[in-house]
Amino acid sequence: MTTAPWSALRVDGVRLLQRLQDLGQFGALEGGGTNRLALSDADKAGRDWTVQQMRDLGMAVQVDAIGNVVGTCAGMQDLPPVMTGSHIDTVRTGGLYDGNYGVMAGLEVVATLRAAGVRTRRPIQVAFFTNEEGARFQPDMMGSLVMVGGMPLQAALATQAVDNAATVGDELARIGYAGSAPVGAPVVDSFVELHIEQGPVLEQQDRLIGVVQGVQGICWMQLRFTGTSNHAGTTPMALRHDAGMCAMRCAAFIHNLVVRYGGSQLGTVGGLQLKPNLINVIAQEAVMTVDLRNTQAAPLRQAQAEVLAFANRIASENGVQCEHRQLADFEPVDFDADLVDCVEQHAHALGLSTLRMPSGAGHDAQMLARVCPSAMVFVPSRQGLSHNVHEHTDPDQLVHGANVLLQVLLHQANR
Amino acid sequence: MTTAPWSALRVDGVRLLQRLQDLGQFGALEGGGTNRLALSDADKAGRDWTVQQMRDLGMAVQVDAIGNVVGTCAGMQDLPPVMTGSHIDTVRTGGLYDGNYGVMAGLEVVATLRAAGVRTRRPIQVAFFTNEEGARFQPDMMGSLVMVGGMPLQAALATQAVDNAATVGDELARIGYAGSAPVGAPVVDSFVELHIEQGPVLEQQDRLIGVVQGVQGICWMQLRFTGTSNHAGTTPMALRHDAGMCAMRCAAFIHNLVVRYGGSQLGTVGGLQLKPNLINVIAQEAVMTVDLRNTQAAPLRQAQAEVLAFANRIASENGVQCEHRQLADFEPVDFDADLVDCVEQHAHALGLSTLRMPSGAGHDAQMLARVCPSAMVFVPSRQGLSHNVHEHTDPDQLVHGANVLLQVLLHQANR
Repeated sequence: MTTAPWSALRVDGVRLLQRLQDLGQFGALEGGGTNRLALSDADKAGRDWTVQQMRDLGMAVQVDAIGNVVGTCAGMQDLPPVMTGSHIDTVRTGGLYDGNYGVMAGLEVVATLRAAGVRTRRPIQVAFFTNEEGARFQPDMMGSLVMVGGMPLQAALATQAVDNAATVGDELARIGYAGSAPVGAPVVDSFVELHIEQGPVLEQQDRLIGVVQGVQGICWMQLRFTGTSNHAGTTPMALRHDAGMCAMRCAAFIHNLVVRYGGSQLGTVGGLQLKPNLINVIAQEAVMTVDLRNTQAAPLRQAQAEVLAFANRIASENGVQCEHRQLADFEPVDFDADLVDCVEQHAHALGLSTLRMPSGAGHDAQMLARVCPSAMVFVPSRQGLSHNVHEHTDPDQLVHGANVLLQVLLHQANR
Repeated sequence: MTTAPWSALRVDGVRLLQRLQDLGQFGALEGGGTNRLALSDADKAGRDWTVQQMRDLGMAVQVDAIGNVVGTCAGMQDLPPVMTGSHIDTVRTGGLYDGNYGVMAGLEVVATLRAAGVRTRRPIQVAFFTNEEGARFQPDMMGSLVMVGGMPLQAALATQAVDNAATVGDELARIGYAGSAPVGAPVVDSFVELHIEQGPVLEQQDRLIGVVQGVQGICWMQLRFTGTSNHAGTTPMALRHDAGMCAMRCAAFIHNLVVRYGGSQLGTVGGLQLKPNLINVIAQEAVMTVDLRNTQAAPLRQAQAEVLAFANRIASENGVQCEHRQLADFEPVDFDADLVDCVEQHAHALGLSTLRMPSGAGHDAQMLARVCPSAMVFVPSRQGLSHNVHEHTDPDQLVHGANVLLQVLLHQANR
């Protein structure tokens, strides 16, 4: 990599941290953390403030029909822009960084360029997408999904909140973010999202920058075993139809499967509800959740098939019914190899340690990857905590990540 | 067995069934079944009616300080009496037969003897014991436990209800059953309890009379696994402290152990509570119940030790804490071999098919077995249902059981 004239540029760390603190005031929770559910009053306040920041930086702001907001910093030529961004909605007990960090760092990049009088060849855009979290309206990543044509606009607007009858369309109108710009795949040169890891890997391996190669595929299932409730003391083992036992054996099978597959295979049984859930009564019903993830599509499909086959077999052997409901099914996403290399090279040029890794969580970048070369940059999350008011990344780590974003955007926008 | 002069005596089936129906009216539930929780108003009403039945049969009635009621039908000689009986309290959604059947059949035996003008050598007693179910006050089998000296009277009287501040002592006084007779091991010749099986074995094996050889030992434990909550997508398997996975592997281990032990070993994980119990969050806590039963003390102890060792090992391997709480621990009870033979012989003499079997549930007879030769007679339970408003035994099966009780009591009381 030849040294570019802008390679000595650095973001203003204090200004970045201040923006994060300022944004965190909207929906701030007592004792720390943020509650800025999508399209709530707090979200509106955060959006208004962020839009004002964009305007103050001289950016042109557009809002589309699903409420995605894009600020544009003009380039020297009228070429497809290089986009960065993330989201500023949070879960009900969220932290200051999930999503917000990527948007505020994007603004800080623009502020840095502006302060240095640097103008790029291509325009640079900073976006925040509607309802990434999915905590109030499902599915998650809604704004970016609609933008890339993965969900019809009308269906998204008609989506009801999980806790009342308000729709996305109602709430966008109410808070003033039912924008006039059309939705649809934007003509974007490339997309880079900076985000906290939300997992413990970088911290455990003592690396500063995660070079994200892709997003794991996700298979979410609910398995419902239905057997017969009976007395735990008077029912011989051979005469039981124990729904709970079937579910728990299935959970043990999943754990063994994950160990057997190795690689990037993950498996979690985080939810299990037994009925009647009493010490001396054989469970008549067990409803369990299965969360399988893999960066490779083939083993993920194979794992799903094996789990279902085992569940049906153990149920059948025990005279128990097994029903299966698919709750989510996302193929793995591979980010653009050149852009991933670019992230890694610029981190190294900044003297930062890196780790190539998949993203375990879903991000807007996986939607943008459908329409343009995309990549992500991760910074460490203390103890891997996220969706948690105790979410934390050290200030210097936040600044390192923003500098990587700055350099990658400069590289892309000056191509 | 030589034919005794009374071997042709039979109970009046219609009268027996009528008494069961009549008693079932106290605390009757809409649509069937009975709610006669210990020392409730409904229990008082059932007790008052049953005491009147005893008096109408010419029995002397005594109530002891823990509310156990004993009706005595005098014998020709002043010898230790032969006792039968059970309980008339029920669970909140109980059936007509659990406990009640044994008491009503005892009264029917006395009514039969009275109608036939038969007087036995030894007195015959019919008892009902306080709070056998343990549904309102714990422990269960309280009245018989106190009677045989297994629990101090004062501790029993001070026991609070599970749902309010009322004590056993308060409630006995309130319903008029804080009796004047002293508690303490009664001088009883022998004890025979007739009961529904509460399990499916007799029905499955198409036998009419269960010759109960003893009561299984019971080991109840609560295992609490405490790990760390984390994101199911971003936390590598090797960095997890998954409390739910530990619990569910432990449940699978218990099932394998039971299969490996065979014999009378039973194992049930009927209760499991995960926290936070979400599809994409690794459980930070899993509280599971373990119900182990065996008719033999040694393998039951061994099973308990193996389960605890496994729980601690899986927890330790996963960086999870495991706490263990013993909730119940009853040694197996063997009934008196001669009295068990006596039950079997009289069933055969009546032309009834039999099965030697353990009792899976606890019964007052296991308490009486501490102070006198004791045994039990079981009749089938349709589908093994019990503690259930759909509890059912066919009328002719109820009558068969009462005739076995009649003959066994005559045999014992005329020795």
